[in-house]
Amino acid sequence: MNNLLLFGAGRSSLYLIEYLQKWCVANLCALLICDKDISYAKNNIQNQEGLTFTELDIFDQAKVEALVKDSRMVISLLPAALHIHIAKLCLEHNKNLGTASYISDEMKALHQEAKDIGLIFLNECGLDPGIDHMSAMQMMDEIKDEGGVINSFESYCGGLVTNDSDGDNPWKYKFSWNPRNVVLAGAGAPAQFLHNNELKMVPYHQLFKHIETFEIDGAGIFEAYANRDSLKYMGLYNLEQVASMKRGTFRKGGYATAWQVIVELGLTDDSTPMHLKVGTTLSQWLAAYLPDGHGDLKSEVKAITHCSDAEIEKLDWLGLFGNDTLPMNDGTSAQILEEILKPKWHLMPTDKDLIVMLHKIGYIQNGMQQWRSVHMTLEGVSETHTAMAKTVGLPLAIACKLILEHKIEARGVLAPVNSEFYTPILKELEMFGIQF
Amino acid sequence: MNNLLLFGAGRSSLYLIEYLQKWCVANLCALLICDKDISYAKNNIQNQEGLTFTELDIFDQAKVEALVKDSRMVISLLPAALHIHIAKLCLEHNKNLGTASYISDEMKALHQEAKDIGLIFLNECGLDPGIDHMSAMQMMDEIKDEGGVINSFESYCGGLVTNDSDGDNPWKYKFSWNPRNVVLAGAGAPAQFLHNNELKMVPYHQLFKHIETFEIDGAGIFEAYANRDSLKYMGLYNLEQVASMKRGTFRKGGYATAWQVIVELGLTDDSTPMHLKVGTTLSQWLAAYLPDGHGDLKSEVKAITHCSDAEIEKLDWLGLFGNDTLPMNDGTSAQILEEILKPKWHLMPTDKDLIVMLHKIGYIQNGMQQWRSVHMTLEGVSETHTAMAKTVGLPLAIACKLILEHKIEARGVLAPVNSEFYTPILKELEMFGIQF
Repeated sequence: MNNLLLFGAGRSSLYLIEYLQKWCVANLCALLICDKDISYAKNNIQNQEGLTFTELDIFDQAKVEALVKDSRMVISLLPAALHIHIAKLCLEHNKNLGTASYISDEMKALHQEAKDIGLIFLNECGLDPGIDHMSAMQMMDEIKDEGGVINSFESYCGGLVTNDSDGDNPWKYKFSWNPRNVVLAGAGAPAQFLHNNELKMVPYHQLFKHIETFEIDGAGIFEAYANRDSLKYMGLYNLEQVASMKRGTFRKGGYATAWQVIVELGLTDDSTPMHLKVGTTLSQWLAAYLPDGHGDLKSEVKAITHCSDAEIEKLDWLGLFGNDTLPMNDGTSAQILEEILKPKWHLMPTDKDLIVMLHKIGYIQNGMQQWRSVHMTLEGVSETHTAMAKTVGLPLAIACKLILEHKIEARGVLAPVNSEFYTPILKELEMFGIQF
Repeated sequence: MNNLLLFGAGRSSLYLIEYLQKWCVANLCALLICDKDISYAKNNIQNQEGLTFTELDIFDQAKVEALVKDSRMVISLLPAALHIHIAKLCLEHNKNLGTASYISDEMKALHQEAKDIGLIFLNECGLDPGIDHMSAMQMMDEIKDEGGVINSFESYCGGLVTNDSDGDNPWKYKFSWNPRNVVLAGAGAPAQFLHNNELKMVPYHQLFKHIETFEIDGAGIFEAYANRDSLKYMGLYNLEQVASMKRGTFRKGGYATAWQVIVELGLTDDSTPMHLKVGTTLSQWLAAYLPDGHGDLKSEVKAITHCSDAEIEKLDWLGLFGNDTLPMNDGTSAQILEEILKPKWHLMPTDKDLIVMLHKIGYIQNGMQQWRSVHMTLEGVSETHTAMAKTVGLPLAIACKLILEHKIEARGVLAPVNSEFYTPILKELEMFGIQF
């Protein structure tokens, strides 16, 4: 009953572990860290006082249940689809739960039951979702307190790398997050948002063409493409009456128009497994997506997608026109593309990642249209102590401390959109350099 | 035990009913016709000797089971997803089954069990799939018998209307088949085919751009876009070694490039329900898919899709730039589009539909590359007695007769690719004017 229990010890776990480790040491309990492979966390945390590492199959129901039963609170950094199994055990054994993932419909369905028992199932308490909710709600609550009526909400976030870390990579992007999610960003449904009281739908195959540009003081110029469904945040944020509502993702200049070419060609298809001969080259794989696919592939790509030399250069840098053999022969094109990108967009030991977040709020005050923008940028320290791991892990770690110290009154399945979460968490994040 | 049992009495049922009615009368049994709404069949069949019409909820398991149990053989023209329920009852009560639909994975899974009991579950015995299989297999078996080695297979089919029936419709297309399938044609996965030993993948948002043109003697010029997965037919047709394998769909000139604009804009999205205000106009709905969506929408569509005036004219004829209110406010864009198209592409009482099918086979004979093409065209008689209903219904009806008369030896889950099916069926179809 004295263990704090963490499932998932991957790239986003280090800061969370290090923060909660201090709390555990001070409060004479152990932090039990479980994953099918705990080597990443074990190798990258130097002081291991108060930590117990357990290698565990998360589908070993009996073991997982015994651990949950014996814990003080449970935190899950597992892939989002696995949270629900943990949540059901928490319900059964009367434990609070924290995750950094979006609230799934299955999780949402547990709300009343968790609330009735008096449990807290906190979700969406990382970076995006997480810090975005908290900083936006704090900003909007301030505007409302000053008598403003909000009529426009825009929020953007990007997990990028610093300019010094770009190297010769013309995409100016490296993976600080799940590569598969980057490859499939936006796939499956059109992006939806509201602009001046008009609904806007952007089909996936047009998504990276319709970008907006933002300059952020001291950080540079960023392009934003629209995130999936911005409309559903109108309810969560109490913004049912706004004329504009948009959430988006930042990339550095040139990424989106080049990724648009990849999408238009069809190279992100995840529906159809291919079975390619061993020895198939990248350009042969590309040629399958070109009606002709012979002769000058660059010219054919330009003709089909109406792209410019700048985009061709980025595809060329990935080796798509070359004769290297594919890293994978059986799989969807999205899977093949992920394997091509992984070594190309790999964060090097000296690289530093970069988080950029921007909120732009419009409101009526004293009969006048007003605008307020805030932004946050944060650089990583190293390949392992990334800004991504820090901004995903610390909010959840601080929230867990608040829950453990009985400072949260709300019950049920929650996101951190109320001040009992955002005020203390944002305040403490400032001490870690995470500041708007 | 003496009834012949038909589930599904919609647009494709008339010829099948009329054919099997004669057989039933001659063989002293009844043809029992069941659907949730039997008015279409009842109103359009004049001589009803030997026919019994039963209105029935297909999900009323007890009633359906009693009918199956008491039948001589079962035919299903229900939506394809419902066949499996009927098939399981047929298995339980030892009845043969006929459908015109593609063999689903669930249906395929019943093969061994059906075979062991000695049952025939015949599928894919309509037009496409159906007549295409049979005519292609007959043609290829002839080529093989003459010593040819097939190295290229192409097959195309279209359900169209005669030139006289085009009227002022610039699309030169009307619905003679399920409108939803026409709206969603090709959606969800890239088309795959083999061209000169090279795999070709065509993403949905490019599908109607990559067309081939064919001239068919006496019938005119047709454009073909690639069907979903042509590769899976290599196994069914024993064509594992061919260099080219492609199946496609015919449209009249101009349709595909205009439909491409609809797809590129995102108007066929079926993933995201929209909830539009009552009174929303067609042009407002269109504008949601345009980044600007104000001013001259035609110019914006041209700029985004690089289309020409000919495509704009076709969209305009559908009313997409106009101020008519939407026929539906809650639904996906694919559903809304279907409701817009239904009255525009409705087959009028004097209209005649047109079936066009073409096979083009390449083979090596005496060391030389040879080519052989055959085609079939068929015009409908009226709005109800369509060429579509005839070519879907008659092959299945004739096949059922063969099964009822114990002329088929194969057992299990089958498609009509062997000569015991195709020889007698194609021969009898000729008497109905269906001839290659």
